[in-house]
Amino acid sequence: MSSRRQFISAAAALVGSAGLLAGCNKKEEAISSGSNSQEKIHWKLVTSWPANFPGLGTSANRIAELITQLSGGRLTVKVFAAGELVGALEVFDAVSAGIAQMGHSGAYYWKGKSRAAQFFSSVPFGLTAQEMNAWLYYGDGMALWEEVYKPFGLIPNAGGNSGTQMGGWFNKEINSVADFKGLKMRMPGLGGEVIQRLGAIPVNLPGGEIFSALQSGAIDATEWVGPYNDLAFGLYKAAKNYYAPGWHEPGTVMECMINEKAFNALPADLQAIVKGAIRMVNHDMLAEFTMRNQKALHDLAKQHGVKVKLFPEEVMRELKRVSDAVLDEEAAKDPLTAKVWASQKAFRDAVTPWTDMAEGAIIRARSL
Amino acid sequence: MSSRRQFISAAAALVGSAGLLAGCNKKEEAISSGSNSQEKIHWKLVTSWPANFPGLGTSANRIAELITQLSGGRLTVKVFAAGELVGALEVFDAVSAGIAQMGHSGAYYWKGKSRAAQFFSSVPFGLTAQEMNAWLYYGDGMALWEEVYKPFGLIPNAGGNSGTQMGGWFNKEINSVADFKGLKMRMPGLGGEVIQRLGAIPVNLPGGEIFSALQSGAIDATEWVGPYNDLAFGLYKAAKNYYAPGWHEPGTVMECMINEKAFNALPADLQAIVKGAIRMVNHDMLAEFTMRNQKALHDLAKQHGVKVKLFPEEVMRELKRVSDAVLDEEAAKDPLTAKVWASQKAFRDAVTPWTDMAEGAIIRARSL
Repeated sequence: MSSRRQFISAAAALVGSAGLLAGCNKKEEAISSGSNSQEKIHWKLVTSWPANFPGLGTSANRIAELITQLSGGRLTVKVFAAGELVGALEVFDAVSAGIAQMGHSGAYYWKGKSRAAQFFSSVPFGLTAQEMNAWLYYGDGMALWEEVYKPFGLIPNAGGNSGTQMGGWFNKEINSVADFKGLKMRMPGLGGEVIQRLGAIPVNLPGGEIFSALQSGAIDATEWVGPYNDLAFGLYKAAKNYYAPGWHEPGTVMECMINEKAFNALPADLQAIVKGAIRMVNHDMLAEFTMRNQKALHDLAKQHGVKVKLFPEEVMRELKRVSDAVLDEEAAKDPLTAKVWASQKAFRDAVTPWTDMAEGAIIRARSL
Repeated sequence: MSSRRQFISAAAALVGSAGLLAGCNKKEEAISSGSNSQEKIHWKLVTSWPANFPGLGTSANRIAELITQLSGGRLTVKVFAAGELVGALEVFDAVSAGIAQMGHSGAYYWKGKSRAAQFFSSVPFGLTAQEMNAWLYYGDGMALWEEVYKPFGLIPNAGGNSGTQMGGWFNKEINSVADFKGLKMRMPGLGGEVIQRLGAIPVNLPGGEIFSALQSGAIDATEWVGPYNDLAFGLYKAAKNYYAPGWHEPGTVMECMINEKAFNALPADLQAIVKGAIRMVNHDMLAEFTMRNQKALHDLAKQHGVKVKLFPEEVMRELKRVSDAVLDEEAAKDPLTAKVWASQKAFRDAVTPWTDMAEGAIIRARSL
């Protein structure tokens, strides 16, 4: 899931038609600790999501609530949906300029600021959520991300992970690499570049326009997020063939950036609270998506007769080969991006045998 | 990894011979927030681990450090290694009685208190770490765990996860189910019960005695934790065949229990800080083990020539069939355990197809 301006449209689509979302953010109420006479600090958190957008907007709300709770109300954070204070794709600039102290978004939106940014969200055949956290927190990941955002006066943080996404909805079966020839598929970013090399025509559409484009035949296929968000968009009504896995986004990281000056002005305990609350939600979102995705997958099957298909091995092999070529070329365009991808790729290749014999092997065995 | 008294011996073995561990806990120093005049509170955290035991003891230290940081030193927590204040297997009683306010351990040690407890650590062919967090935080897991510990005046928390463990070290190859006949294997708990039904002789040995027992031939095989901890124990010197995956512990949860009365006496912000710090470390430990295990796996291969083998499919299929039978029988022994296992089993069966087509499919595809 990634595209310029898609979330603004998605907001309009969801609020206007699906009616899933409340019209306003949850109010932040300061909890009085009863014993704390310090001056209260008020921060703003701008997001790239519609208000209370399931999983993403709600995680931004949760970061704000946690900061209030952990600080006993000394620091309160007001969340702004996309378009309320700044546009969905103005989050980076707004937090950099100090218009808001925090921003919740996805790093792949900021390719125009630094090509390296997209490697901190998710890349084709990259790291799973568990591996990404290992690389960020116990490898070189966070230090590299900080280096990339430093020139903009921003402190990056991982602010949530969707886990492995889905491969998308197709109006025909994918039985071989040849089936990508001429396929008009909504797939932005590096994934779009990969399928283009297989002969497909990648299309960039905002979330709110996907459903009608797929139903009208303007596109033949689309990816979105996973069962939880795909069900909410009703994509099963527009195409029959639902494919796994989301090879283009194996574990997508959300980000929660902080304005460096505002952060440095906080006392040490509030700094720890801000970083701690974000880190907690980064992990928790994965647990939430795991719960909601499995439930939505069952609903798709039972209520709407959706049977998930796996891409054939031949197709996955070719997608991986082309993905690595695309990533290597992208990284070679500037030295900082090259450094980031070299680190992430080395870790991916090093951790792959371990993940395969640990989580991979027990997952396989349970389905024997 | 689980057995009565093993950690006390493990502590002795490590401190006495391997020399890996410092002799004392890291000192907790109160960080003055400079602006907070409240009375400082001092808590004790007892553990079932040797001082600074890699991954486990260090995670208990980290919980204590985080609480100090997040509270600006208003609440400080002193960590005690096994045997310093109470014994490794006296943690539950000590926290229940208020001798310490917190305890870091593993729930499967408390089967004698409540049979249901062991279902909150890890069971054969149970949940992966990611799934366990989904069940605990977004399913019925935490509420059930609280119900189990409530009669003891304890508030349970997940306090770390090792991820999928390893299947163990064997002095011969396992090519079929028949190879378990007569096999003397160190494997405590429910896993031991499972291999017994396959004709093996499960042996319960403390960690510190495993190496010499395996080397002398007193046992033919042993499980311990994963590459990180197994390398530290030098098990590769005593048996050649290293098998994956750890079917008996697919995602082992550590616990961090809190004395209910002590917790209720805290102001709301310190309550949020205590729970928040534990939750953060619960997630972080998985990232740490992922990093350290993949590194140790490479070291085992490159420096010690260890090649990991996967159990044959026939063996995994039979282990799973017997495991489910053992778990069903165990759960049927009392109503609360039955309720806990019914919930966890239903979630495992519901989440399995999702995990298989998400993380499972991308992990498989990367190794094609």
